[in-house]
Amino acid sequence: MSLLAVGTVAFDDIETPFGRAEMAIGGAATYITIAASHFLNDIRLVSVIGDDYPQDMLDYFIGRGIDIAGLQVKAGEKSFFWAGRYHDNMNSRDTLDTQLNVLADFDPVLPDSFKDSEFLMLGNLTPAVQKKTLQQLKQRPKLIALDTMNFWMDVALEELMEVLTMIDVLIINDEEARQLSGEHSLLKAAKKIHTFGPKYLVIKKGEHGALLFEDDRLFFAPALPLQEVIDPTGAGDTFAGGFMGYMAKTGDTSFENMKRGIIYGSAMASFCVEKFSIEALKGLDSNQINDRVQRFVELVNFDLVVEI
Amino acid sequence: MSLLAVGTVAFDDIETPFGRAEMAIGGAATYITIAASHFLNDIRLVSVIGDDYPQDMLDYFIGRGIDIAGLQVKAGEKSFFWAGRYHDNMNSRDTLDTQLNVLADFDPVLPDSFKDSEFLMLGNLTPAVQKKTLQQLKQRPKLIALDTMNFWMDVALEELMEVLTMIDVLIINDEEARQLSGEHSLLKAAKKIHTFGPKYLVIKKGEHGALLFEDDRLFFAPALPLQEVIDPTGAGDTFAGGFMGYMAKTGDTSFENMKRGIIYGSAMASFCVEKFSIEALKGLDSNQINDRVQRFVELVNFDLVVEI
Repeated sequence: MSLLAVGTVAFDDIETPFGRAEMAIGGAATYITIAASHFLNDIRLVSVIGDDYPQDMLDYFIGRGIDIAGLQVKAGEKSFFWAGRYHDNMNSRDTLDTQLNVLADFDPVLPDSFKDSEFLMLGNLTPAVQKKTLQQLKQRPKLIALDTMNFWMDVALEELMEVLTMIDVLIINDEEARQLSGEHSLLKAAKKIHTFGPKYLVIKKGEHGALLFEDDRLFFAPALPLQEVIDPTGAGDTFAGGFMGYMAKTGDTSFENMKRGIIYGSAMASFCVEKFSIEALKGLDSNQINDRVQRFVELVNFDLVVEI
Repeated sequence: MSLLAVGTVAFDDIETPFGRAEMAIGGAATYITIAASHFLNDIRLVSVIGDDYPQDMLDYFIGRGIDIAGLQVKAGEKSFFWAGRYHDNMNSRDTLDTQLNVLADFDPVLPDSFKDSEFLMLGNLTPAVQKKTLQQLKQRPKLIALDTMNFWMDVALEELMEVLTMIDVLIINDEEARQLSGEHSLLKAAKKIHTFGPKYLVIKKGEHGALLFEDDRLFFAPALPLQEVIDPTGAGDTFAGGFMGYMAKTGDTSFENMKRGIIYGSAMASFCVEKFSIEALKGLDSNQINDRVQRFVELVNFDLVVEI
């Protein structure tokens, strides 16, 4: 099956307690497509970059089976840039700089060959761009997932709410779920968010795992405890890319299969944070991924033998 | 099998965003023994109270199969009192008042009939009291678990470290594990804490679940997402009581069985927080507990069908 991903392709300056990376490869669509490329080889990327973006990364995308026909290159302009510094506990970060550059007037254009995509991942971007992407599709994908953030809830809530009526799976973190719903309890938040449109809700809790909701059904995937978290940048996008990559690979959109997708997404995210930027994702092979998924099985596996 | 529990029996004033309770029944040993009483009926309580403690609670303990022969009653003195206020997110709280009262010079005395106890839960108290309890036992219990807190790490670290060499299972929260080990990564913290003595380490993460470590073995139990958390007071002690109650009921101290104990402890804690004080624990029956444990099974259950 095919997976279309829309999102940023960018440079990041990152500071963590373990070091810093300057002009590192970043961007939501970068992490999403590279994570998904470990599951399938029909991936389509829609984004925008300046002519400062390195050719070897474009070659890398192509080598991973990622079609970059929808990646606009703006001559004489600069790619989107973000700089951030993580606090000691890695759970929070400060944004030091954001330069929209080519993203300021990004108008997504889907090549004709992308318009029949069967799975769609709308990375975190202005809801207007997410909607424009949806409107260009010839037929509705089997599964549409969307990521967003509190910033769009603050400045473009009406447009965001409209896009939410057009998708299947909303993927956000716990604080975003609370802001969007006005509810502190995640159970209550999920109930409310379902009424906004999305049949499925994934709430990412970072080092505390992820929850999948469908009405009264609930699944929890832990995060794998790690020796060291080096750089959390892109973990959420890698999670989404692994999840949607697995869903597109299997073509099965049942709740049971979504649970497996959440585990694969969590496994991909656990690799992502072990090195700066996309480094850990680049070196992976499928044996390593299957081994890590097995560690998730062992982590939560128990069998009841007696009732009390 | 028999379970001996040592800890506070107290009154609490509690404020949460949902209301307040004054002079509510509290104390670590209260929650531990009542939770454990849902699993077995040979429970022995060692603690101290003043003559202000209500007779109907003493009758309640006895009615639940909790032997209070080791509960000292100090005439003319007051029971231990704690007052606290929870913040809006329920994850943190301020202590408003602590009155040690009878606890100030508590000298635990085990009745002869308690000295052969097969399971021992040392609730959060000064390490000196925990050690004195251990020294009175005629034979080493099959399993000794201990709870402590950052306060004892600050003021009685040397004594605490000595007691840690005498126990099997240390049950603390994530911040306490980080303080005790000086490591931020919980994997690294566990590795270090194992060298202090405890073969098993349980790290409680509140609404984010609990981890069980034994050398390189690792198990994670989620917390059950709840509609409403009304009062988190006693959740950790209830967890410990459910865990040790299950361990004593089954008499099986293997890692596999400890995993089940962690799930039962988590289930008991999930009830505890749904009402103020011990109210939710008082009304429970075994069907409700088994049903709730089944919800934990469903929450984390997934089966892999394909490798990637």
